[in-house]
Parts: sequence; C-alpha cells; structure tokens
Amino acid sequence: MATTYFSKRNLHFLLHEVFKAEELTKYDYFSAHDRETFNLVIDSATYIADTLMHPYLKDVDRNQPELKNGQVTVHPKIKEYLKAMGEAGLIGAGFPFEHGGQQLPEMISSTVGFIVMAANNGMMYTGLTSGAAHLITSFGSPELSETYVPNLLAGIWQGTMALTEPQAGSSLSDVTTSATPQPDGSYKIKGQKVFISAGDHDAAENIIHLMLARIDGAPKGTKGISLFVVPKYRPDGLIDNDVTSTGVYHKMGQKGVPAMHLTMGSNDNTIGYLVGQPHQGLPYMFQMMNEARIGVGMTAAAIATAAYYAALEYAKERPQSRRLNQKNQLDAPQTPIINHPDVRRMLLFQKAVTEGALSLLLEAARLYDISEVAEGEEKENAFLLLDLLMPVAKSYPSEMGVQSVSQSLQTFGGYGFTEDFPVEQLYRDIRITPIYEGTTGIQAQDLLGRKMTMKGGKAPQLLFAEISKTIADASTHADLKPYADQLTAELKRTQEVMASLMPYAQQGDIERYLSDATLFLDLFGIVVVAWQWLKQAVVAKQALLTQNPQSDELAFYEGKIHTMKFYFHYEVPKTLGLAVRLKDPEVLTIVTEKELAL
Amino acid sequence: MATTYFSKRNLHFLLHEVFKAEELTKYDYFSAHDRETFNLVIDSATYIADTLMHPYLKDVDRNQPELKNGQVTVHPKIKEYLKAMGEAGLIGAGFPFEHGGQQLPEMISSTVGFIVMAANNGMMYTGLTSGAAHLITSFGSPELSETYVPNLLAGIWQGTMALTEPQAGSSLSDVTTSATPQPDGSYKIKGQKVFISAGDHDAAENIIHLMLARIDGAPKGTKGISLFVVPKYRPDGLIDNDVTSTGVYHKMGQKGVPAMHLTMGSNDNTIGYLVGQPHQGLPYMFQMMNEARIGVGMTAAAIATAAYYAALEYAKERPQSRRLNQKNQLDAPQTPIINHPDVRRMLLFQKAVTEGALSLLLEAARLYDISEVAEGEEKENAFLLLDLLMPVAKSYPSEMGVQSVSQSLQTFGGYGFTEDFPVEQLYRDIRITPIYEGTTGIQAQDLLGRKMTMKGGKAPQLLFAEISKTIADASTHADLKPYADQLTAELKRTQEVMASLMPYAQQGDIERYLSDATLFLDLFGIVVVAWQWLKQAVVAKQALLTQNPQSDELAFYEGKIHTMKFYFHYEVPKTLGLAVRLKDPEVLTIVTEKELAL
Repeated sequence: MATTYFSKRNLHFLLHEVFKAEELTKYDYFSAHDRETFNLVIDSATYIADTLMHPYLKDVDRNQPELKNGQVTVHPKIKEYLKAMGEAGLIGAGFPFEHGGQQLPEMISSTVGFIVMAANNGMMYTGLTSGAAHLITSFGSPELSETYVPNLLAGIWQGTMALTEPQAGSSLSDVTTSATPQPDGSYKIKGQKVFISAGDHDAAENIIHLMLARIDGAPKGTKGISLFVVPKYRPDGLIDNDVTSTGVYHKMGQKGVPAMHLTMGSNDNTIGYLVGQPHQGLPYMFQMMNEARIGVGMTAAAIATAAYYAALEYAKERPQSRRLNQKNQLDAPQTPIINHPDVRRMLLFQKAVTEGALSLLLEAARLYDISEVAEGEEKENAFLLLDLLMPVAKSYPSEMGVQSVSQSLQTFGGYGFTEDFPVEQLYRDIRITPIYEGTTGIQAQDLLGRKMTMKGGKAPQLLFAEISKTIADASTHADLKPYADQLTAELKRTQEVMASLMPYAQQGDIERYLSDATLFLDLFGIVVVAWQWLKQAVVAKQALLTQNPQSDELAFYEGKIHTMKFYFHYEVPKTLGLAVRLKDPEVLTIVTEKELAL
Repeated sequence: MATTYFSKRNLHFLLHEVFKAEELTKYDYFSAHDRETFNLVIDSATYIADTLMHPYLKDVDRNQPELKNGQVTVHPKIKEYLKAMGEAGLIGAGFPFEHGGQQLPEMISSTVGFIVMAANNGMMYTGLTSGAAHLITSFGSPELSETYVPNLLAGIWQGTMALTEPQAGSSLSDVTTSATPQPDGSYKIKGQKVFISAGDHDAAENIIHLMLARIDGAPKGTKGISLFVVPKYRPDGLIDNDVTSTGVYHKMGQKGVPAMHLTMGSNDNTIGYLVGQPHQGLPYMFQMMNEARIGVGMTAAAIATAAYYAALEYAKERPQSRRLNQKNQLDAPQTPIINHPDVRRMLLFQKAVTEGALSLLLEAARLYDISEVAEGEEKENAFLLLDLLMPVAKSYPSEMGVQSVSQSLQTFGGYGFTEDFPVEQLYRDIRITPIYEGTTGIQAQDLLGRKMTMKGGKAPQLLFAEISKTIADASTHADLKPYADQLTAELKRTQEVMASLMPYAQQGDIERYLSDATLFLDLFGIVVVAWQWLKQAVVAKQALLTQNPQSDELAFYEGKIHTMKFYFHYEVPKTLGLAVRLKDPEVLTIVTEKELAL
C-alpha cells in the first residue's frame, strides 16, 4: 500500500501562497477564521483520512454493499467514519453557525473533500449529505431545517440527491415521479429513481432524499419540477415511509458506496415535504450544482492524486534496466525507473494534470466563496466567472484524471494491473467521474451553449481579463515570459475558434453550433489549466527570488516551475489540432436522411 | 448482453476486398486453400465463439482462477473451449501440415484470434499455446516437436511463454533463472517467473513452458540467454517436474486467465530441455515476437470492437432528450441517443479506431505471410515493412482501444459503469494490452530506436512508397483527393520530425533521441491508420462505382467513406501538436544533477 496519497505541502502552497485563502476572512461571514483555523481543519480531516479511511481502501472495495431482505449492508468502517466526520464538524464545515456549521469557506470545505477522497473515495458519503442539507437550509422552511439538518450534519443521518430516473438520465425535463398534494400540506410521492448514491445503507439511522418530482397538473418539462424532502423514515417516530430499495447496482468502481434503485409509493404511502416553492425544483437544484460539481471535480482530482503518489513511490524504488546512454554497462546495477525519460514524462504528466486540476478547483471554490459573501459587482463578477469555469472544473479533473490514473497504472507495468497495488482500483474508481453530475457531453453543451454567451459574453471577457493579469505578472520574469506569450497566443486562438462558431448560433442552428462542443471543452480546459500553471509558476518564482529556499523547499518551487514548463511544452500544443477541427466547416456527426452503417 | 460483438461483413471486406487474402494462395505453401476454405475457418471460429465463449463472458469474469493446495482451478467452460478449438484445428491453424496444422496464412489464423477474443477475451488460452508450439517447431529438435506439439495443438496441453522475472520486467538482459547441464543432455532449472499467463490450470492435462534461462557460465546480458522447454509434468509418464505454483495474481481484468507466479527447482528437480542452440534464446523469442504482438493487437482490437457494438446497439435503442434544434418540443417523444451529434461523434470515433486498427493488423498479418513464403526481395521487403509496422500494430490497437472502450462506456452513461452491461468488463480487460508483450514505451523505443533507422532507413522508405500508391489510387477520385493530399502532407510532417530528431542519434545521444519516442509512436500510428482508412475508402469507392450496391450494402460502403472522413477531420489533426512537441528543443524529462520535487 502506498504511504502517501496527497501532498499537504502542495495544499498549503495553493491555499495560502497562490490563492491566499486568509484574504477571505476580511468578509464578515468568514471573520471568525484565520490561517490557523483553516490549517486545523485540514489537519483534522487528514487525521480522519489517515486513521479511519486510507487503511480500508481495498477492504471497502472488496466488500461491496449488498441488498438482502430489503436492507443494504455497507462496510462496518463507514459508520465510524460518518460519526468522526460529524463530530469533527466536517460535514457541516461550510454551513453557517446558526445551522451548527463551522462557517468555513468552500475553499476549505472542498479541500476537506479532496483529502478524504484521496484517502478512500469508496467512502463517498459525507459530500452527499452536505449537499442535501444545503438544499434544505437554502430553500426549505425553518421547520424542515430544524427537523433534518442537525442529524445530517452530525453524520447520524445520510442525505442524498435523488434526480435520475430510468427513462430520464441527462434529460431532467422527462422526470415523471409524481407528487400528489395531501390535506395536511404534505405530498404523496410515487415513482422510481436510479443511481442514487448512498440511497440506502445501514451506517446511517435514516436516509433523507432530496428528490425531484412533479406535482399533479404541473407544467411539462423543466418548469414543472418541484423539490421534496423524502425520508426513509418519517422523523416523527421514525415510521417507515414506503421507500423501497428495489436494487443495488453492482459497479466497476467506487464499490464502497451503494448506487440504489429506489421505488417510492409501492404501498401508496410515501410522504414528501415540499422544499420552497412549487415548480422551483430545477432552479434550486441548479443553484447547488456548482457546489456539487466542485465536489465531483475534487473527487476526480483526489483519486488521480492518490494514484500519482503511488506511481511516484514505485518509480523511485523499482530498479529496471540501465539508462539509455549506458545500455551496455551490464555490470552496472539497474536504475530506478524514474530515471528513464519515458517514465519521467508519464510522472510529469500526472503531476501536471493533478496539481493543475486541484488549482483550478480551488480557483472555482474561491470564486464560489466570493460570490456568496461579497456584494455588488464583485459578487456578480465572481458568480459569472464561477459559472463559466464550472463545466471545465468538473470535466477537466475527471476526463484528464482518467488519463492520469491510466499513466499511473502504466508506470507499474504488469504490477499495475494486479490487486497488489492500489492503482487498478483507482483506475476503476475514477471512471465514474466523467458521468456523475452531468456527463462531459452535458458539461460541454453548458459551456458553449450557455456560459460562453450569457450576458453578451461577459463571462469569457472577465476570464480573459483575469488571465491577462497572470500573463502580465509572468512577463516581468525573463524565464517565464515565453510562457506568458504562449498563453496570450492561446487566448487569441480560443477567440478565433469562438468567432468561427458564433455564426451557427446566430443563425439559430444550435445543433451545428454545439456539434463539437466537447472538443471546445477540451480546448478551453487546456487553456484554463495553462493559466493555473502560469499562476503557480509566478508564485514559485517569487518565492525563489525572495525566500532563498533550501533543499526540499527549493526542490518544491523549482518542481513547480518545471512542471509548468512541461505543461506548456507537452499539453498546450494539443490545442492546435483541436482548433483546426473546431474551425473545420465539414459536418460529419449530424444525422441526415441518408442512413449510414455505423 | 449485447448480441453483436463483431461484424463478419467488415471482416470479409478487409480480408477479401481490401487485402485480397486469396492472392496468398498463389504461393506454394498456401496453395491448398482458396477463399472458401478461408471463410469456412472463419465460420468455424464464429460457431465456437457464439456457442462456447460469448455466452460465458461475464461468468468467466466473475469466477476468477484460484490457487488452492498447489492447484489452479479455472472456469469449467475453458476445458470445453480448448477441446473444441483443438478439434476444429484452430490452435494449429497456422502450422504446417507436417505438424498436424492447417497451413493457413497468419491473416486467417489471426482473424480467428480476433473473433474468439471479441467473443470472450477472458478465454485467452489458445494463442499462448500456438505461440509456444511455434517456438518448438521452429527451433526445437524433431524429438521435441514429436513429444510436445500434437497434444498442444489438440488443446489437451497448454503452452506458455515464460520470460518475465520479478527483478526483470521489460529488461530481459537481467533474467537470472539458471540452467545447469546434466549428463543426459537435459538441464536443471532454478528460478522464478512472474505474470505467466495460463501458467497453471486444471483445464489442460499438462502445461508446457517455453522458458528463458541462463546456462551456467553464460555471457552476461541478452547474449547469454537460452530457451528451454520446461513441462509441468515430464512427458515420460507424466512425472511431476517440480514447477510450483507460488501464487496467482488477482487482476483488474482478463480474469479468466490465471497470471501465475511460478517457482522452478524448489526441490532441485526441475528438468528443462534446450530448444535449438545455447545462448540463442532471445533471438528465437524475438523471431516469434511479431506473431505474438499481432496477437496482442488483435486482442485489443477485438475487445474494443465488442465494446463498440454494445455501445452502438444501446445508442440505437436508448431514447433520451430531443434533438438540439427541437429542444422545446416537450410533447415530442425522446430521440434515440445516436441522433445526438456528441454521441454520434463518440460512436464514429470507436468505429474509426476499431476498424482502422483491425485493418492495420491484417496488413501486418499479410506482410508476415509474405515474409514467410515469398523469396528474394519480395520476402525481404515484406519483412522490413512488417518489422517497421509491428510496434504500431501492437500499440495503436491497445492504446487507442483503451480510449475507444472508454467512449463505449461513456455512451451508456451511468449504466456503462454497472455490471448490467458488458462494457465495464471490457474497459477493465483491455487495459492490460498496452502492457503485454512489451509496454507502449518499449514499442516506442523499438520503433524510433531500431526500426526507423535499420538498414539506413530502408523500412520507412518502403512504407512511404506503399502509402504513396494508396495516395495515387485515392487521387483519381475527386471526393477522395483532398484526403490523399492531406496524407501527403502528413508524410512530409513525419519526415520533418525525423529530420529534427536524427542529429541526436548521430551524436550518440540516444537518451535524448528517444526521450519523446512515445509521442513519435503516437504520431506514426495516426499517420499509418490514416493510410489504412484511405485504402479502405478507395475500395469502398470502387465498389460504389462498379457494383451499384443497395440498402445495407450501400450503407456499408458509404459508412466506410464517411468514417474515413471522420478519421481525417477528427483524428489526423492531432499530429499538429505532436509534431510541435517532437521538434521542440526543450528537454524536460531527462534526469539532471538538480533534484526536482516530483
């Protein structure tokens, strides 16, 4: 088992040196905190991760949840972990004091998510609970909050997000679960939900579903969907609420978390409680979506990080062959494989992807915080930027994370494919992240179809202005200037691509406008992460110039600049081919009358 | 379970229309055959695949081999399949009549491998047996052949390739298993081997290892390695030969085949029989390597093909959402997801990769056949071309196959991650192929370090001449000419990359010359598969012009041309970024004195 699964040094670098998390404490809402309390929370999460999670990584994978006699049994350590997270205040880390939370910034609570997911992503329970509880505190009545939130944040009850139905995966407008008003103001719920993560298990005393359903007579499509609290047991006396566990999916990875098929109202006796106003379910859900997608991105970045450190450790220890210029020195000992350029390239790729992804996610979390607590233009701009970055902050870590873990596995050679090392599991686990909370294809449509054009394209303008600041900072250092110039050229390329696509949108041919949206997302992701790397390199450069760091610290900062260079030399050139295709007028993926043999 | 896992129509197209397999029968060695006997063999393999293999795809995965009391138990259907393959003459398909084979071309016997691996790659046993038996018939004494080959080709005994040792994975020069001469001419073998596929199991009556070992006092490095037959039971009375099953690796995929850890000589009583001359083990093994690597490539292409057909079937049946230009027509039924451009793009990618890979592999198999049976310059040129194409014919199907199956999984959305469909298994299974028989990094060094430069660069000259013929053919059709021109430009790009790399080799700085060899392999693979697609498109175009095909046949040929276009518009532009990096003078992956924090 790998001993390291994330780098606290890198977390501190990003939180404190790059993003200056402490600056958030100037806002009233976060004023109870300082750098020290932030670090204490991180240490507390690390302790739980080290002691209650990481040691059980494989064990949780090997003992997947089973449904027997209507009851789902999960690994016994899950209960301990839920309780510890609740007691440490980590489930409610981001909640206001009034709800029993720690009122910490999303930057810190999402960092907690990163640490625990790097330790053991099969224990993905508490993020779901936080999300569900947050829906209640944000949009529900005070009574709903009082009834549900304390036990949720204590880790005694489990929260879920119950959106997907068998006939409505990515298409929420086709949700059919029904809600019939009752005289007492509650609703009877009838329908089915699938893929409900942590949707039933024995580590929690109750399961609280935040569920989308359609009130009888509601308008069609997304405008007629409402949000309900649907508990497994009704809180008044823990009476069974007729939510049946119809099945548990057996999955390729993330086996520790049951994905449930649930049936509501088999005995016409499932009660739901409306959250907020009728027909506002989707807007409510979407207001939580940024937070949920930061969570998925963090999970992906965390899994890839754990795999990277496992591969790095192996590459430093495993001797194999001799260096290529000493191939014939057969008496010489074999060299550790990290000394082979191809292995080093694979490791630098993993470092570039994982630390780049984490940086982007913390950028998103910082914008989330500002959009929550700032006012006026600052608030609005942060929100626009966050909204623009979100599709890529969810999909870059997951799509590139999949590739990164694949390279971690390859670093081990044949051993990577065996259960002797953790990478095969992480390779399976991470593959769900490009599907969770909106597939990559959906993210791409969101980015190009909505975020790039909303408010007359104001969001990309703001982003380009932010990136230009980093370019200006970098340009003051002679050795960073070539990379600043390269990023300037990439911004221009992105604008050219947009200019060539816009006419389709203006003509109303949305299908054509979006037909290669996923490639645009890829392009945009490379550029945005290049920005994150340049930003990190500027901070590292300043540290080298002003702090005279030695040994490990020197290597850390120089490693940052080196990895930035790697990213610009190896990853950024991929935009060339993407831009050629995106500007290419030939249509090949839109259905025509002519049926092709696919 | 998907009903289709490969396309016989496509196999016939490639074998008969593109590569004209029957032309091989003009050579004496293959003269007993014709198109009909070729098709009969394919039908025979399909029957076994349909009845004895594909129905057990998941069952074999779920009941992985276990080692108990020194004995490895595998799925009971393995034995039936081995027997059926033996009785149908398919294990010996490629062997000469004198050894009880069918004397079929590699084009046909590797097609058999493709079919059975598409059906159930967890039953990967017979290809190993063929490879082992082929080493004996090629280099062993008549006595060795008489003793071992009949039972191997009958599927009664299992053959293995026993190369890898715990301390010597990719570095065979560090093999330490020892062979001590005995008075009777045999050798006592002592040592350990790891990752020996099918290295022990109860579906065969004996296991015959073709094992690399070092005769006492042999020269160091690769020049002192000899090849031995090391049976589990000595054939004279089936006496135990002291080959101990020390462990069975539990793997992420291909769970049907045990990967064994074997110990020879625990009781100083393992006898091995020298194959051919002493110290020639590695040259022998490498003469078999092309065949073995075609086998791995076929396995990868087969797994990706099975996943593609599963995804295609699902995409045609699964309704979800409405087409983007009809997004607001909520009363309209949901459309099958194949009608969404992004899904169609994913499917075309899978078709382009899998059919492109299969085409390249059949090209390699055809060259293999000519290199075996032709004479003089024809033989020599075929061998050079095969040698050049082999690294990419092994790694393109496996590396791009991994990506293709990932897109198959994504096509299913959340269902792809569950055991309800076969793709999650195929996603796990295919991941070993970039590691088997030389990792991608090793293939890349072989291509750039040896194949591109051998005989003064004659092999790439021959290849470019072959590609130019296809370009000339395509240029006669107005609608193919733009693609012919594009391929011409890609050849020029490849030559420019080589020209920029050669100085490093000429200066003897092999480490620098090869530092980005894997990217060169990527580039070369894209260009070579573009050639295969253009070749297919020319044949399809001619069929459209001359045969007036209707309905399914019309769609088939038009689908070929469409997919060629897709490949050139979506895949080929990736060479732009690769070429930029390959010509980039900046060195970032070679170890320096300065230790970086990776």
